[in-house]
Amino acid sequence: MSDAVMMEHDELWDKLNEECGVFGVFNHPDAPQLSYYGLHALQHRGQESAGICASDGEKFSYHRGMGLVTEAFNGNQLSKIHGRMAIGHVRYTTAGESKLENAQPLVFKYTGGNLALAHNGNLVNAEQIRHQLERQGSIFQTTSDTEVIAHLIARSGYEIEQAVRESLRMIKGAYALLLMTENKMIIALDPNGLRPLVLGRLDEGYVVASETCAFETVGAEYIRDVEPGEMIVIDEKGLRSERFAGQTQRAICSFEYIYFARPDSDIDGINVHLARKEMGRQLYKESAIEADVVTGVPDSSISAAIGYAEAAGLPYELGLVKNRYVGRTFIQPNQEMRARGVRMKLSAVRKVVEGKRVVMIDDSIVRGTTSGRIVRMLREAGAKEVHVRISSPPVKNPCFYGIDTSSREELIASEKSIEQIREYIGADSLAFLSEKGMIDAIGRNDTAPNRGHCLACFTGCYPTEIYEDTKNCVEK
Amino acid sequence: MSDAVMMEHDELWDKLNEECGVFGVFNHPDAPQLSYYGLHALQHRGQESAGICASDGEKFSYHRGMGLVTEAFNGNQLSKIHGRMAIGHVRYTTAGESKLENAQPLVFKYTGGNLALAHNGNLVNAEQIRHQLERQGSIFQTTSDTEVIAHLIARSGYEIEQAVRESLRMIKGAYALLLMTENKMIIALDPNGLRPLVLGRLDEGYVVASETCAFETVGAEYIRDVEPGEMIVIDEKGLRSERFAGQTQRAICSFEYIYFARPDSDIDGINVHLARKEMGRQLYKESAIEADVVTGVPDSSISAAIGYAEAAGLPYELGLVKNRYVGRTFIQPNQEMRARGVRMKLSAVRKVVEGKRVVMIDDSIVRGTTSGRIVRMLREAGAKEVHVRISSPPVKNPCFYGIDTSSREELIASEKSIEQIREYIGADSLAFLSEKGMIDAIGRNDTAPNRGHCLACFTGCYPTEIYEDTKNCVEK
Amino acid sequence: MSDAVMMEHDELWDKLNEECGVFGVFNHPDAPQLSYYGLHALQHRGQESAGICASDGEKFSYHRGMGLVTEAFNGNQLSKIHGRMAIGHVRYTTAGESKLENAQPLVFKYTGGNLALAHNGNLVNAEQIRHQLERQGSIFQTTSDTEVIAHLIARSGYEIEQAVRESLRMIKGAYALLLMTENKMIIALDPNGLRPLVLGRLDEGYVVASETCAFETVGAEYIRDVEPGEMIVIDEKGLRSERFAGQTQRAICSFEYIYFARPDSDIDGINVHLARKEMGRQLYKESAIEADVVTGVPDSSISAAIGYAEAAGLPYELGLVKNRYVGRTFIQPNQEMRARGVRMKLSAVRKVVEGKRVVMIDDSIVRGTTSGRIVRMLREAGAKEVHVRISSPPVKNPCFYGIDTSSREELIASEKSIEQIREYIGADSLAFLSEKGMIDAIGRNDTAPNRGHCLACFTGCYPTEIYEDTKNCVEK
Amino acid sequence: MSDAVMMEHDELWDKLNEECGVFGVFNHPDAPQLSYYGLHALQHRGQESAGICASDGEKFSYHRGMGLVTEAFNGNQLSKIHGRMAIGHVRYTTAGESKLENAQPLVFKYTGGNLALAHNGNLVNAEQIRHQLERQGSIFQTTSDTEVIAHLIARSGYEIEQAVRESLRMIKGAYALLLMTENKMIIALDPNGLRPLVLGRLDEGYVVASETCAFETVGAEYIRDVEPGEMIVIDEKGLRSERFAGQTQRAICSFEYIYFARPDSDIDGINVHLARKEMGRQLYKESAIEADVVTGVPDSSISAAIGYAEAAGLPYELGLVKNRYVGRTFIQPNQEMRARGVRMKLSAVRKVVEGKRVVMIDDSIVRGTTSGRIVRMLREAGAKEVHVRISSPPVKNPCFYGIDTSSREELIASEKSIEQIREYIGADSLAFLSEKGMIDAIGRNDTAPNRGHCLACFTGCYPTEIYEDTKNCVEK
Repeated sequence: MSDAVMMEHDELWDKLNEECGVFGVFNHPDAPQLSYYGLHALQHRGQESAGICASDGEKFSYHRGMGLVTEAFNGNQLSKIHGRMAIGHVRYTTAGESKLENAQPLVFKYTGGNLALAHNGNLVNAEQIRHQLERQGSIFQTTSDTEVIAHLIARSGYEIEQAVRESLRMIKGAYALLLMTENKMIIALDPNGLRPLVLGRLDEGYVVASETCAFETVGAEYIRDVEPGEMIVIDEKGLRSERFAGQTQRAICSFEYIYFARPDSDIDGINVHLARKEMGRQLYKESAIEADVVTGVPDSSISAAIGYAEAAGLPYELGLVKNRYVGRTFIQPNQEMRARGVRMKLSAVRKVVEGKRVVMIDDSIVRGTTSGRIVRMLREAGAKEVHVRISSPPVKNPCFYGIDTSSREELIASEKSIEQIREYIGADSLAFLSEKGMIDAIGRNDTAPNRGHCLACFTGCYPTEIYEDTKNCVEK
Repeated sequence: MSDAVMMEHDELWDKLNEECGVFGVFNHPDAPQLSYYGLHALQHRGQESAGICASDGEKFSYHRGMGLVTEAFNGNQLSKIHGRMAIGHVRYTTAGESKLENAQPLVFKYTGGNLALAHNGNLVNAEQIRHQLERQGSIFQTTSDTEVIAHLIARSGYEIEQAVRESLRMIKGAYALLLMTENKMIIALDPNGLRPLVLGRLDEGYVVASETCAFETVGAEYIRDVEPGEMIVIDEKGLRSERFAGQTQRAICSFEYIYFARPDSDIDGINVHLARKEMGRQLYKESAIEADVVTGVPDSSISAAIGYAEAAGLPYELGLVKNRYVGRTFIQPNQEMRARGVRMKLSAVRKVVEGKRVVMIDDSIVRGTTSGRIVRMLREAGAKEVHVRISSPPVKNPCFYGIDTSSREELIASEKSIEQIREYIGADSLAFLSEKGMIDAIGRNDTAPNRGHCLACFTGCYPTEIYEDTKNCVEK
Repeated sequence: MSDAVMMEHDELWDKLNEECGVFGVFNHPDAPQLSYYGLHALQHRGQESAGICASDGEKFSYHRGMGLVTEAFNGNQLSKIHGRMAIGHVRYTTAGESKLENAQPLVFKYTGGNLALAHNGNLVNAEQIRHQLERQGSIFQTTSDTEVIAHLIARSGYEIEQAVRESLRMIKGAYALLLMTENKMIIALDPNGLRPLVLGRLDEGYVVASETCAFETVGAEYIRDVEPGEMIVIDEKGLRSERFAGQTQRAICSFEYIYFARPDSDIDGINVHLARKEMGRQLYKESAIEADVVTGVPDSSISAAIGYAEAAGLPYELGLVKNRYVGRTFIQPNQEMRARGVRMKLSAVRKVVEGKRVVMIDDSIVRGTTSGRIVRMLREAGAKEVHVRISSPPVKNPCFYGIDTSSREELIASEKSIEQIREYIGADSLAFLSEKGMIDAIGRNDTAPNRGHCLACFTGCYPTEIYEDTKNCVEK
Repeated sequence: MSDAVMMEHDELWDKLNEECGVFGVFNHPDAPQLSYYGLHALQHRGQESAGICASDGEKFSYHRGMGLVTEAFNGNQLSKIHGRMAIGHVRYTTAGESKLENAQPLVFKYTGGNLALAHNGNLVNAEQIRHQLERQGSIFQTTSDTEVIAHLIARSGYEIEQAVRESLRMIKGAYALLLMTENKMIIALDPNGLRPLVLGRLDEGYVVASETCAFETVGAEYIRDVEPGEMIVIDEKGLRSERFAGQTQRAICSFEYIYFARPDSDIDGINVHLARKEMGRQLYKESAIEADVVTGVPDSSISAAIGYAEAAGLPYELGLVKNRYVGRTFIQPNQEMRARGVRMKLSAVRKVVEGKRVVMIDDSIVRGTTSGRIVRMLREAGAKEVHVRISSPPVKNPCFYGIDTSSREELIASEKSIEQIREYIGADSLAFLSEKGMIDAIGRNDTAPNRGHCLACFTGCYPTEIYEDTKNCVEK
């Protein structure tokens, strides 16, 4: 065997990836430590780097490191961060750009003093603004669009609240944003509310997080979801809310319900596990099949699989088991063993599937590679038939709002028909949940104000203006 | 906040712990790499250290390191291990003795050449033999009983097969043992078959592992379970089996089915997930309760919870969600936050349990601390009633066969009645699965030869002679 | 013994510290690797972080890490840096600010493309410019004055050469500066030439370095020292030199000769070892004393000690020996052992000094703490008399040009008379080299153009304008 | 540039290597911490691993780690080691066997209790005893001969003092040995006293070390050198000395004076620096040459160079400067740059040697590779003539007493005449110090009892019986 080559598990795993999670605390003696626990609860939203910045009212102290929260803060770093106010960030980055330089919160000095920023989402006009700023003499030390926001604020010339307000009006795209000065926290959500963001209370203070699961971990009480186009300022005078955008239209990312968010989180009051379970039930209604057993691809498809099994009156079984000790990297198998690579992460349970007609529930198909491997694994374990049911519609279009989608060419559903995909992954049958079925299952009531979805990756209709060469559906 | 104190998750988590897993390959060009993947599949059996020793027919090459397999082999260590034959080991050690010195395989030179040993289990007469050996001039560099086996073999004076045979006759207790010389592999299981051990085939060679899940990962074909009191020799002449013990009585550790083994493994042909599910069904039969929803403590109680829910006709729900990014250590919460410590690992799902009568399935109760915390968590999330159902009998006695049990005083069931335990953990009701119910559910057919269980931790009747001050049931 | 506290050796060691070293290569296929070796040769100028940025003509690749060059590049980082042009930097930072964020080269994007900067020195008007830039909307992510230079260039609006020229005219203080665009290298030295910077040739390309010792290591040929106020541009059209400053007056930092530079380096053609040796000879002329043996404090005072011994006709001996394995940190001795702390680094040789009248040569005294310890060590080893001779004048004033001096209060010579210092360090006699003696010994011929010294730390006369509250001698 | 290959500096550096250093403390409250500092002072004797074992009177606590003392004890390991008695060890190992398993002190349990061993030296009959022990059933977990000593003690059946005494009588070769039981320390030196070992006092307790330099560091007072064939027992009853060997003949390793020992150490009352200086003087007497300047290869040849220069009346100069920041590994230069590899470690000072006739003093030549590179370096820096003078006789025979010599074929002086070596290294002239000259210079007075040298590497006459196939001079 030649020299060991380390491989990232994600190379073998075919999923969309969330890019960030944010967490903030205002007015609590344990603000940095609470941030550590809060970020840990949001770890599924980003595992490449983690950071916390706190303010003691006069100055900042902060640390950013690579890896999980428990890795980035593996020594006494946390004990050097002091203050009753803090913001934190976990980040997922695509392979080539995995650098500490990109870790957040972004901390900088400008004429108004110190400012820290934590950003979940992606701006669609960042390049355009960046070039404009560069022409005016700005320098950029990272490729992160968060740095663009920092420059806009610094250049506005207004005091901080007005500076943020003005800056938000210039940026387009998706952003759940936490800003912190020495004594003030500002929270903002883009006019479409593309990313989730929730507000809570803890003792005498406030907390804000990407998902409610972080509130459970730190023991905070949920108040409400931040509204699209809302800017919230919290300082010694209390909490003030305002709308910085005239026209807002909630378009929460559907994939938060489908795959990203933790099942114990609620988004706009709707529990993610229950929504997924309902998607499973709906999936059965739309594309029932004769079968003996239902299994889900762990962990994200378990809820939908339970729902499907209940609706079908079939036993829900652990037909696929995940290795709980999968780290981020492992030694790359040689060519012969590579075909078995996915087995490092997942195993089929022979006794459960042998001789059975198996319904395999997965939450989504992106490139189709993993699905094919799992179907093959089930067949090798003796499954008589494998019927794949996907609890979301086919992903045909790239995301520009902070999700690491492949380009359109890599999205199997943009190139192949469902029958072609079925053939590609080797399933006996294949069905996707319909858009309407998904929307009904989630139950946000799409016609009500502020209850809309972003369906762009399914439909190609983007809720915001987009880069010039991409069609969008804003006018619709 | 004062200086950060790192805390081990296990301090907050109340489970029995398996002590080891073993894996071996005979006659395969990728023997070291297969061992890496095989041990990875057995990682749940030990996370403190990992090691692989290979033989190229003439000499050994090996590496042992601390942590997970992917951590112990995080560089080019694997590429320096060569040979068509290899044995590997993953080890769990109790806190105070976590040293690289104790990592296995144990590799040593004796008059017959090189020998490597990997051992899962615990000898009950190790101390006694050790003292005898010391009186004869042996030195011991670790506290591991595996070193005792090595000395016995070296001192026997016989050629290796006879030496092993003689040594096995002297040791008592639990052992699934892999030995390797430059060109021979020897596999042995104690006369009670207390620990699992399976034999398989891969291409032109053989594999052996603690559990069948490792076979799925490396793509090997299951042949059969190693028999109690069986010694298998594999060398260039092929595979030979013999009985080294006259009287054997299978007494497989019940906790392998209850908690230790991976759900996708089969032990003596019985799938662990299905056995657990059946334990859940049986648990319902024995102690049904009016309720709205069934939830399991992830991950080990999921199977039983599904079984209970099916039998009860109640919905099985994700009422408790586990954080997938829990490492071995984290920064210790301060006093106030400590009560919330278990939330780093587990969260209750409010929308699922709020206002509901919840049946919470757990596989076992050891000290009772975690159970109490989870019950409280469910109540704080709004559960109207919490009925705890344990899919195994009460653990009242320590294990001497390689499981890290607390002393008897720490076992809550040895000190308290079920009603007292119920009160201690704050549940509305509490029931354990009966011994008979468990045995029936697993379905090993206890009266048949070689199908017996070890029930010592429940009954106090140990299948072997034991330390002098401990009663045993051998004569019964 | 209580918990181990790690201590930095510098806390026990009383020296001025250089803040940086720079190295650049233009047009060589091994540019990144040469930078690695070149920086290694300049390691004495900074040990806190190291970085290399290369350009392949179109894009940059770079890495910055903490620690020594061999630590910052301890894996395959160097193999990912490509191009025929590269600049590198080693940095010393004072304790509190030791962060990767401050590591150089600083790399950023601006309207003209990519730019990388490596800076040795310190600007005296950085704060002032920074505030002005902040008022214009700039943001600062570090406290480094190098970021100020980057902003000035980006804001100038000119093409790069003119932009640099204009920016250099705005900054005051000390700077040896390397800049790199995708296809051009720009080298600049402040109008006083406070820091050393040399130009060389290697095969078809050019190299530039803080000291000539780096040329020896990479095998380059010395061309000449960069001139004060000179800006050199190297690109495909070749090398062009110009003066960006009208009035220039060389004022090379005296401490480069006294302590900072490596003895094998030449500054303006004068070898550092030979200059130091001559300082030792001069020191004897000025303050001869009856003695038996001469010893130097290793390593920096060896040359002066040899010179003194030669002039005095006394044997030069290793009366003090340094431990070659001193890392940056070690476990802090407890109170009782702390007095012996300096012995981790240095030992007196009893057989050499016992019963002898010892002349102990040191290059400088800053706070006086180490000197006192060494004198005591010599006495404990049996020295009959200890006569301390310092091969530089008393340091009475802080440095603002990139040397980490203590504030004036901490400089023992600014507070105490020579007799008081003698008493403080416990020497039998003490003498410093005179300013004139030092200048004569170095032999730069101070009256010639471009051959002057900066003597500010001795005289308080600073060669540039300085912060408003500090007197300067520019007008003189 | 291809992938980075890390290279060890030693591969480029041609020296004999000491294999170990030992340090012990009896009856001091800071025993573990003193051991840490003592081993640090002995770091030059071994850099591959370090370990400390302490006894609190009842049980042992210990740690062993890879690397320098400050690396092996880089966390809180030291704070977990408790007791008033401790022994420590630093180890150098040849490349292939660099494993933590070989780190010392060796700690084991035997019938008499716990025992810890730290050993400097090498046994010549270890293999023979090992085979005998293996035939009696002993197992060996390392290839270290120290394990042989442990087995002998354990097998003797006597109480510890007699057991050690008997064991020492069975082993042949070189050993400076520290043993520790729960409450007793035993110190032993081989009958030829091949390795240095000194005894000292610290407060109410005793210390023992390979060299006196460790006493200076911890502040201990030198009592005397341990005698050849002496065994010292220290326990609560005090210190007792005895001779375990009837016939003893001191034969201290000459290379301790030539190269290994620190210049500030005394061996048998003779200071190493002064001995080296005298060797330099003697070298001049034996082979004077017309020249302008004398330089030494740092650091080990500085003393001899000073002596030569004094005797010759020539200036001693820093013609070669060593980089102080050389770690153990660095990125391997590519083929073209490799010739310059030695420049990572050493540079010639052009201004010192240019146009000069240079005498280059080195302490020894082993394979001759480094010498050739340095001569070339001096020539490239402009030296007109390079006259190499070696302050020891030619090394023609391997060492079997714990020094990592190459095999005889690799020793340039065993294959080539002096003229051939001169030609090989490219010097204008070459001379070695004579055996008699060396002995006279060291001044041990070889005819007095207990003042003899081991000269085996020069003469081939070994002071002990040796492996069967090697001639020895015992009978002479």
